[in-house]
Amino acid sequence: MKFENKYSETVKRIKSNLIRELLKTAGDKDIISFGGGIPDPETFPIKKMSEIANEVIMNEYRVSLQYGSTEGDPELIKQYIRLMEEYEGIHGLTEENLMVTTGSQQALFIVGTVFLDEDSYCAVSKPIYLGAGSAFNQRNPKYISIPLEKDGMNIDYLENELKKLDENGEIDKFKFVYTVSNFHNPAGTTLSLEKRKRLIELAEKYDFIIIEDDPYGALRFEGEKQPSIFKLNNGERVVLLNTFSKVLSPGLRIGVIVANKELIRKMVLAKQGMDLCSSTLTQRIAARFIEKYDLFEEIKPTIELYRAKKDKFMEALEKYLGDIEGVDWIRPEGGLFSWITLPEGFDTMELFEIAKRKKVIYIPGETFYVDEPERNTMRVSFCLPSFEELDEGVKRLREAIDEYAKEKGIELKLK
Amino acid sequence: MKFENKYSETVKRIKSNLIRELLKTAGDKDIISFGGGIPDPETFPIKKMSEIANEVIMNEYRVSLQYGSTEGDPELIKQYIRLMEEYEGIHGLTEENLMVTTGSQQALFIVGTVFLDEDSYCAVSKPIYLGAGSAFNQRNPKYISIPLEKDGMNIDYLENELKKLDENGEIDKFKFVYTVSNFHNPAGTTLSLEKRKRLIELAEKYDFIIIEDDPYGALRFEGEKQPSIFKLNNGERVVLLNTFSKVLSPGLRIGVIVANKELIRKMVLAKQGMDLCSSTLTQRIAARFIEKYDLFEEIKPTIELYRAKKDKFMEALEKYLGDIEGVDWIRPEGGLFSWITLPEGFDTMELFEIAKRKKVIYIPGETFYVDEPERNTMRVSFCLPSFEELDEGVKRLREAIDEYAKEKGIELKLK
Repeated sequence: MKFENKYSETVKRIKSNLIRELLKTAGDKDIISFGGGIPDPETFPIKKMSEIANEVIMNEYRVSLQYGSTEGDPELIKQYIRLMEEYEGIHGLTEENLMVTTGSQQALFIVGTVFLDEDSYCAVSKPIYLGAGSAFNQRNPKYISIPLEKDGMNIDYLENELKKLDENGEIDKFKFVYTVSNFHNPAGTTLSLEKRKRLIELAEKYDFIIIEDDPYGALRFEGEKQPSIFKLNNGERVVLLNTFSKVLSPGLRIGVIVANKELIRKMVLAKQGMDLCSSTLTQRIAARFIEKYDLFEEIKPTIELYRAKKDKFMEALEKYLGDIEGVDWIRPEGGLFSWITLPEGFDTMELFEIAKRKKVIYIPGETFYVDEPERNTMRVSFCLPSFEELDEGVKRLREAIDEYAKEKGIELKLK
Repeated sequence: MKFENKYSETVKRIKSNLIRELLKTAGDKDIISFGGGIPDPETFPIKKMSEIANEVIMNEYRVSLQYGSTEGDPELIKQYIRLMEEYEGIHGLTEENLMVTTGSQQALFIVGTVFLDEDSYCAVSKPIYLGAGSAFNQRNPKYISIPLEKDGMNIDYLENELKKLDENGEIDKFKFVYTVSNFHNPAGTTLSLEKRKRLIELAEKYDFIIIEDDPYGALRFEGEKQPSIFKLNNGERVVLLNTFSKVLSPGLRIGVIVANKELIRKMVLAKQGMDLCSSTLTQRIAARFIEKYDLFEEIKPTIELYRAKKDKFMEALEKYLGDIEGVDWIRPEGGLFSWITLPEGFDTMELFEIAKRKKVIYIPGETFYVDEPERNTMRVSFCLPSFEELDEGVKRLREAIDEYAKEKGIELKLK
């Protein structure tokens, strides 16, 4: 049977995941990979988690192995409200302000479903988190791409775009701004306090919603913690997305949405048709884990490890790339990623092949755009390679850059 | 903030789940409920599962707690291919023919996303499984509702509808027939072998896909096992949906799609934006469980229990409702459900209030229609109440029926 004419327009639009394809071709063990965006599995608290899994299955099987409500495990929601109070200073939440999702990816998908039609606008950062793009793309909205600066989204640019929409009488179709507020994936940047406040002002002026995606916030290794946009706005028009993937384990597939209760009700309706409920087993494991242990004490060694790796990585970048004019990178205060910009004329997708031969890989930046990409950028993650590999990997990257420049006849200007 | 004008057209269409609302109002412990469609938690193999969970976390954490591929855990897929060979006689499957979903609900949602646009047609049974309706509704397709008979969908009716579409030049927009082949939810019916074959003939003639949803097939307590439509068609144009929810535990949230590899590739692309991957922890637990234990030996006691309850329930229906002219019900050969039709003039939604006062509840049939409902029907599940409750519940139901008839001035004709 030929299936081509049976597919929906939605699925015809979906492109295969470039990152996956790239990483597939690079399974070689000698390769140093800055490509992954995943936590170090050696940091998972396996002993504690297996004990809790045992208790949750043996003693709570009537809940933990049964269907659950679409909203999520009430015990997990209760514990999470406590975490939000203790660690984020967010008070006054009730169970109606939260829902559990199958990882943050589902939260993004639900956001897309609840707010976006084909004639809707949303503003996203340039570059954008790939998973947000793949979730929103299924709704085929109109994107407004806002350049990222070192302190986050360029708010002047956003304001100007909103003005234009307003003048064109289309501001009603503008639904939300999507932002990764801390240690952006892919760019490593953090939205400054001033910009957070300006974003809220704009949201009030132009009546839109802010989607604050914060998977990495707990992984701050330096600098001052910023209040969440959600907190600054008292949760009025902010939808906060959190996840256990970076602080406990991705394998649980648990995300949490915190928002106005009216929005939560709509999002629950959407989720019902999508997967009925997330795993009650992994939800209850997470609930008992955060009840029994101090999650933020637990991840301190992980944060220390990532901080040391980040320092080593920054040192290597300075050592091997610091002398090239036009090369720049983000110094993240937390999270898993930095973002390197090479001089004009570089195409990191082409460079990838040379780098692979030199046994180092990264994610070409062009993957992270919903419109015209900047081709001289790359995402690099420092959390999985060893300290030696961090140094050696950047050394190899420099070799690849030199070879690419030679091949293409680009003259590298040295400082 | 007013959110109403921010919502998508999709989410505005979603209605709240009536079953949930009904069951919410009926938390009273004295109530005998035929409403649930969930397995008996006392049948869950908790000891074996907690041992496996422990091993899977302690020894396989690099996989079981990490992100996984969108296609699903390779170990689970390998084991599932073996199950399909041993129990379904389906040979020649490779890993490219399968993918894992977050429960069967996600499989239905993916099917909707991959095949349906607003101008697409699909044929569904009348009544329809509620979860399928809520998944497909998000795509807003055009439904063709096919009446169910005691041996499944009325194929003549379907053929006639297809002919009409063909004559109107719209047959290209017809994407699939959706059917629950064994022990239908809500109706308890099983599609006969002859109808399975005729359905495939029609699919070939009119070039459409068959979505065969089989969550209950392993729960056969009598009669002869029918080959799956998938097997009869060598998987050419059939998408088979299975789940671990009824044979192991719903809390794992694991469904499996078996289909042509081209379709699987498209469905994987769709899932990627939806939740990236299903829980790697629960997938690996399921994989090791079915590797170590014979799933179908394990569920034999469950099947025996459900069979005995079904017998008791049928006996009670005969005893208390058998004398009323125009009352009919399905005698299921497996699964969790029967379907009762009351005489013309009954409205089971109105009857619900009286029944609740009499301390017995069920699901009003009108919940299970995507178009004009039959209001004199109800779904009843026999797997959770005790044997005594099965008898007492039907007795109460008869009292409610008598009272309703009296209130409405309906004269019950007795045989």
